[in-house]
Amino acid sequence: MTQRSEIGIGLMGMGVVGSGVARVLMQKSRHIAQQAGASVAIQGILVRNLSKPRAFEVPRHLLTSNAEDIIGNPAVDIVVEVMGGEEPALDYIFKSISLGKHVVTANKQVMAKHGPDILTLARKKGVQLLFEASVAGGIPIIGPLGKDLLANDITALRAIINGTTNYILTEMSLNHSDFSIALKEAQAHGYAEADPRNDVEGIDAAYKLAILSTLAFHTRVRASDVHCEGITSLGSKDFRYARELGYNIKLLAIARQEKKGLQVRVHPALVPQQVLLAKVDGVFNAIEIEGDLSGRVVFHGQGAGSLPTTSAVLGDILEIARNIASGISPTSSLLLREDIAIKPITELNTKYYMRLNVADMPGVLAQIARVLGDLKISIASVIQKETDEKVQAAEIVIMTHTSREASMQQAIQQLKSLDIVRNVGSVIRVEEWS
Amino acid sequence: MTQRSEIGIGLMGMGVVGSGVARVLMQKSRHIAQQAGASVAIQGILVRNLSKPRAFEVPRHLLTSNAEDIIGNPAVDIVVEVMGGEEPALDYIFKSISLGKHVVTANKQVMAKHGPDILTLARKKGVQLLFEASVAGGIPIIGPLGKDLLANDITALRAIINGTTNYILTEMSLNHSDFSIALKEAQAHGYAEADPRNDVEGIDAAYKLAILSTLAFHTRVRASDVHCEGITSLGSKDFRYARELGYNIKLLAIARQEKKGLQVRVHPALVPQQVLLAKVDGVFNAIEIEGDLSGRVVFHGQGAGSLPTTSAVLGDILEIARNIASGISPTSSLLLREDIAIKPITELNTKYYMRLNVADMPGVLAQIARVLGDLKISIASVIQKETDEKVQAAEIVIMTHTSREASMQQAIQQLKSLDIVRNVGSVIRVEEWS
Repeated sequence: MTQRSEIGIGLMGMGVVGSGVARVLMQKSRHIAQQAGASVAIQGILVRNLSKPRAFEVPRHLLTSNAEDIIGNPAVDIVVEVMGGEEPALDYIFKSISLGKHVVTANKQVMAKHGPDILTLARKKGVQLLFEASVAGGIPIIGPLGKDLLANDITALRAIINGTTNYILTEMSLNHSDFSIALKEAQAHGYAEADPRNDVEGIDAAYKLAILSTLAFHTRVRASDVHCEGITSLGSKDFRYARELGYNIKLLAIARQEKKGLQVRVHPALVPQQVLLAKVDGVFNAIEIEGDLSGRVVFHGQGAGSLPTTSAVLGDILEIARNIASGISPTSSLLLREDIAIKPITELNTKYYMRLNVADMPGVLAQIARVLGDLKISIASVIQKETDEKVQAAEIVIMTHTSREASMQQAIQQLKSLDIVRNVGSVIRVEEWS
Repeated sequence: MTQRSEIGIGLMGMGVVGSGVARVLMQKSRHIAQQAGASVAIQGILVRNLSKPRAFEVPRHLLTSNAEDIIGNPAVDIVVEVMGGEEPALDYIFKSISLGKHVVTANKQVMAKHGPDILTLARKKGVQLLFEASVAGGIPIIGPLGKDLLANDITALRAIINGTTNYILTEMSLNHSDFSIALKEAQAHGYAEADPRNDVEGIDAAYKLAILSTLAFHTRVRASDVHCEGITSLGSKDFRYARELGYNIKLLAIARQEKKGLQVRVHPALVPQQVLLAKVDGVFNAIEIEGDLSGRVVFHGQGAGSLPTTSAVLGDILEIARNIASGISPTSSLLLREDIAIKPITELNTKYYMRLNVADMPGVLAQIARVLGDLKISIASVIQKETDEKVQAAEIVIMTHTSREASMQQAIQQLKSLDIVRNVGSVIRVEEWS
């Protein structure tokens, strides 16, 4: 490949991220050119609606509503896909690679579901596919995992990778809000969408965890492999009780290499207050990688937003542009070393926090303890939190020692069927840092 | 360049880091080969003493005490310099590059003093020089700065990059120890050397800051440009008072782009307790990078130690090995865009914490306030901390509004000359996060 002095970008999507990318490519063109060793110019922008007014106005002649104008344009070296959603983004990415274009994408859904396939095609076609922006916005994590930390056997990965839910949980914790109030607050600030399910049910975090785990463990992890629970059933009381016990509650994405396979799960967890991840507040993200050599490394920053995501997209564009400018052509490779079994959640061993509403009468604890004991769940502490004498009800919080998830699920069913248990308020896993 | 299936390493130095590198290259050779796409084998190891027993025993025939056996060995593709110190390491690196070898180094002193020169030579010779391990051990920071965050204009960099001093400061803060006690503790744990000056006087941190600033601001910053103050004059009381005011005390390395130039400084600072850097305890390191696009990104982990540093060295080796294996040859480039003036510390504007021992009599505060007021240093708060009635002495703590360093230095001289001031205990800059 020969050296080049001008590199063409085809931008697909002109939403929050696309506008940021277009703006920075134009406004910082001198800085970009210096870093790339060649000028980098937008050759076309794919939009749905040509006449829609935009936050950042680009020259009209660049806009097209026909993807072929981008993919088929010989002046386009790098296709930058920031439209989001599975289709038609996936189709465009495949076509671009097939035609020998390099691709930069911010699309977590596409990468989580089809990443290994796209990377294989890119390798075959001799082009680069980079996707730093698909996880945790402005925080460098795909790069460090695939390069700086590559000599490590990764043993565990624990992360807060959804800003919406972390904002909601922070609100619930600091302001003692209920979930529905905190969600409205997040929506008012533009941190949550009108339909928030993708975030609050943990689906967005599961996509990102699938991408990170695939890279970290060199095995194909699909979003559907991730055991996924959201934050909608947490009560504001749980935050108070957790704090009294020395914990915060966070939506954690966890992947861990165990003897018989890989644990991959997204769920709320009690996190010890002194641990760095417990201190990640608001819309911030943080990812902790544990390597056999590096020990624990934490990456913290803004996981979303126009400019932070643009920082990641531009970093990828610059990497490819530098290679084109200096005439070298590394290909994207994702080395999937082995098929590691995914362990079902029922095989998890962890500690649990449990909040129960029970009848306030003698012998109640004995009955509960018997259910747990019969299932080999050993109790670390029981605290009676509130008593309502009028209705003879009490609220108790139980912390268990390490127990098996399958047993805990059985226990919950059995506890629910006890007359003296009015309701199982919350059951939250406890994540410990040794 | 053609593709290669075996890559030779020449290791220079077999101390804490060198032993780690040798051990991992041998024990994880299968993992390394998979990631590199070629086998990676040690062809020779430079040691001072051939017969010294070692923590990790390597085949005797690999050892040599003659650097030429490494540099001149045609089977060596990558020279890995982990001997430390300026000379002869610098000489060996120059010679290796001149002979067309790629170089990986963990040497902060060499990189801080000669980095741009070595990188220029490497570019000329068409080889790679990587140095991730020269700053913050196992934390990826050189890579992310030079790649992932490259589209950013970096506005500020604040870091805890010396584990020895952070351990000592954590001890002083948590256990109310004096400096000398905490230093002995650090030495007993192997965190401080017998001659601890390089660490406790901030010199080690200044080297690392010079390297990071050169990369972040695309201008040559020398260690001698860094205003450097150590931690030896901090009193255990300062930690108590700081905490009461809502701060921790950390040895910060700070670089900030201002209108008229670059601030680069290493000194103890009051850090607001809620800020992430305030929560970095013990021997851990953390680096906060503030970019115009990314916002603030923090990298946290183990800044030293055999395995974390080996993680960084191996990451660099793998990057070069992959390129050799796939037949491409990117060169190291360090784009020094412009000469940015270094601002003298006297031009700094910041807030100050000041602890004074004064006579306990009427009118004392008026005299102090007059000195400060005449120099346009405005007082934010004064707290009388302790009174010793026997000797009629009191201790007061003053927090100032933002003031000019030159004025503060004048003020300290004038305060010292006042009869009523028995001694200026500590003057510590306050670093605020807006």
